[in-house]
Amino acid sequence: MIASDALLTDLYQLTMLQGYYRHAMTETAVFEFFVRKLPKNRSFLVAAGLEQVLDFLENLRFSEAEIDWLSTTGHFKSDFIDYLAGLTFTGDVDAMPEGTVFFPNEPILRIIAPFPEAQLVESRVINLLHFQTLIASKAARSVLMAGDKLLVDFGFRRAHGAEAGVLAARASYLAGFSGTATVCAGREFGIPLYGTMAHSFVQAHDDESEAFLRFAEANPDNVVLLIDTYDTEAGAQKVVALAPKLQAAGIRIKGVRLDSGDLAEHAHNVRRILDDGGLRKVTIFASGGIDEYQLEAFRSRQAPIDGYGIGTYLDTSADAPYMDCAYKLQEYAGVPRRKRSEGKATWPGRKQVYRRFDLDGIMIGDTIAVDDEICDGKPLLQAVMQNGRQITGMQRPLERIRLETQDQLHTLPGKLKLLTREENYPVVISDALKHLAQRVDEGYS
Amino acid sequence: MIASDALLTDLYQLTMLQGYYRHAMTETAVFEFFVRKLPKNRSFLVAAGLEQVLDFLENLRFSEAEIDWLSTTGHFKSDFIDYLAGLTFTGDVDAMPEGTVFFPNEPILRIIAPFPEAQLVESRVINLLHFQTLIASKAARSVLMAGDKLLVDFGFRRAHGAEAGVLAARASYLAGFSGTATVCAGREFGIPLYGTMAHSFVQAHDDESEAFLRFAEANPDNVVLLIDTYDTEAGAQKVVALAPKLQAAGIRIKGVRLDSGDLAEHAHNVRRILDDGGLRKVTIFASGGIDEYQLEAFRSRQAPIDGYGIGTYLDTSADAPYMDCAYKLQEYAGVPRRKRSEGKATWPGRKQVYRRFDLDGIMIGDTIAVDDEICDGKPLLQAVMQNGRQITGMQRPLERIRLETQDQLHTLPGKLKLLTREENYPVVISDALKHLAQRVDEGYS
Repeated sequence: MIASDALLTDLYQLTMLQGYYRHAMTETAVFEFFVRKLPKNRSFLVAAGLEQVLDFLENLRFSEAEIDWLSTTGHFKSDFIDYLAGLTFTGDVDAMPEGTVFFPNEPILRIIAPFPEAQLVESRVINLLHFQTLIASKAARSVLMAGDKLLVDFGFRRAHGAEAGVLAARASYLAGFSGTATVCAGREFGIPLYGTMAHSFVQAHDDESEAFLRFAEANPDNVVLLIDTYDTEAGAQKVVALAPKLQAAGIRIKGVRLDSGDLAEHAHNVRRILDDGGLRKVTIFASGGIDEYQLEAFRSRQAPIDGYGIGTYLDTSADAPYMDCAYKLQEYAGVPRRKRSEGKATWPGRKQVYRRFDLDGIMIGDTIAVDDEICDGKPLLQAVMQNGRQITGMQRPLERIRLETQDQLHTLPGKLKLLTREENYPVVISDALKHLAQRVDEGYS
Repeated sequence: MIASDALLTDLYQLTMLQGYYRHAMTETAVFEFFVRKLPKNRSFLVAAGLEQVLDFLENLRFSEAEIDWLSTTGHFKSDFIDYLAGLTFTGDVDAMPEGTVFFPNEPILRIIAPFPEAQLVESRVINLLHFQTLIASKAARSVLMAGDKLLVDFGFRRAHGAEAGVLAARASYLAGFSGTATVCAGREFGIPLYGTMAHSFVQAHDDESEAFLRFAEANPDNVVLLIDTYDTEAGAQKVVALAPKLQAAGIRIKGVRLDSGDLAEHAHNVRRILDDGGLRKVTIFASGGIDEYQLEAFRSRQAPIDGYGIGTYLDTSADAPYMDCAYKLQEYAGVPRRKRSEGKATWPGRKQVYRRFDLDGIMIGDTIAVDDEICDGKPLLQAVMQNGRQITGMQRPLERIRLETQDQLHTLPGKLKLLTREENYPVVISDALKHLAQRVDEGYS
């Protein structure tokens, strides 16, 4: 399901590789991936996508068909094509574990490899880290807002393609969602699946009650009835009327779903109807245009909603559908490097991020340092791949990552949990890193 | 590259299918896909994604491994699983050709099939049509703004996953872009590929001029030099100094690329430097944070830029990363159906869209009508699939779709070509369709 083609790259990677190949520029290069600045309203980010990056690197190889096709494009000489045919990824990778909270300019992944290998993979490495980090960071906001409510990813249909849908399910589950409606993601990653019925099921029957009955009979263990096709409150009354009949057949109604109108108001009405009908245990699930801002509003209106399906706004990260991020050369052939383009200058060399906590375990500040520098705090980047192979013991099941991400979110300072950015988390650059940058600049004259 | 798994669906499709199966609800259902409203600043949309939808439908079948997995989930009875194992798509499809300009509430695709088949495919049909239509509609805005400038898709790295990157390349090419940097998309769809060098190539050399020389020697037919790694104007001077040496080796510099700072101002400076250095034929290509709004600004500043790489804002449709669209049941077992949920009511039955033009061939208004009604204008939906097989002669090569899309864009009224919505294109509902809706409503009581 997750694409692994070596041709998932930009043409310029291959034309550059042709240059490196011709001039035997195959010494060790160090690239780091980082986010340049926080998207609108974000106070922190959640790293995600590493597992897919490592799988991609470990299996990187041009297929015979890809090599044949490349040779027909007219861009490449035949000896270079032969070189590509034998290319694999043989480098090392250091990274923050998935689920780690991080901030701008902090590298979350470093690749150390022969220059052509490290260069070729840039496009797909960014593509994988950018998207899952974007979605995990978005999802974490809903998780912080939802308290103990159930959150389910409903976004596949409006995700940007199949892979986006499946990876959004993974990233949101990692960030604390309870599951997804996307069947493929359930199979691929073992994510719990949720879902019951759509309006078309109701519409295809001449009578709404008959539709409810038939659905319950066919899916007796998972009876959540969609009650807004014609009139939400009338739908709730029909559920109350139907309950004794189903109960006699040994079928329990688990919940109802609302998908249109003023969800908080309908929820209050429906709760009353259900309670008056003796259905206190039947839960209310809501969907349709929901995001973390809506969750905050529902909370302040004390909407009696037990769970939410969050779709489009989550899977497209609608209020911030991209991040300004980069994968930049930091060192080549043992010499630290730096890009100085206007507005896009980077810190040179291999770096480590140290995080400090107060006595309650709350994060109080990060230092971006030179990799071998000793600093206060917990170092966040760890070795995860060596010589092109994932290091045994560094992989964690998704379920475990999910739990550790929850622990991380508990260490966030209170103000960072708000839906708008009230203050910036303190991240400082170590003196040693500043000096290194200065020395690199003096090297260019 | 484009995923075809039958499990690319939401769980509720399968639980509903279990209901249809149990109650033998397999009569013919008619679903239509349409956009409910225009995204911000959009005045029209461009239909795209049909080819991938038809390929998906034609090849739809659960694999043995998928069937085995489904039977382990606990959601489904074994006779239903056996039924799924034999399921294929046997229905008919009518659609607007890709590249057709369309408006809210106009169906661009209709599926007529046994109910379970038409239901199951909903999630992936929306997923495919929504994304490519979103991107083609976004790309068309840049095409209208760019005049004769070259436009290239640079967005893979920040597209939402691999499939999004590849399909965004297709959708933007369809809408009039000249090509893409995404190698996979070149191979998959025959889209022309563009690309040369990144900052890392320059950074890996101690000397910028040496980097330029080496790149040119390795790629003599495609010399576009990135000149902003340290100082854009100094980079341009180095290109001028290098040109005679390359010329002596028979290598022509095609262009330079700018990727940071005030691109219009740098372009004016660089143009002067190149012209003064006798390099009048060397083109200027710009990238970095460009979208249609920037193109409009560059045009008004008469920036001497010959081509643009458009990335993140295109591939994520950044100012409108989703559309409010739906795939809704319009008829079941010969009876027109209608959803009446608040704010989400639909027009019932099978529909056709008729478009009228003035004497200059400019679009003047559409009518949404009952399918078999005779109306003024050109009918836009055509039969493209019958009994699960694509109708011979209805497929068009991507290159041809691209040309026809350009013809379509020429028929747009002038005000619809603006980057903000100044007026709504007139779309009316036929009297016969209004009467049908009324009759359907009276049927529910």
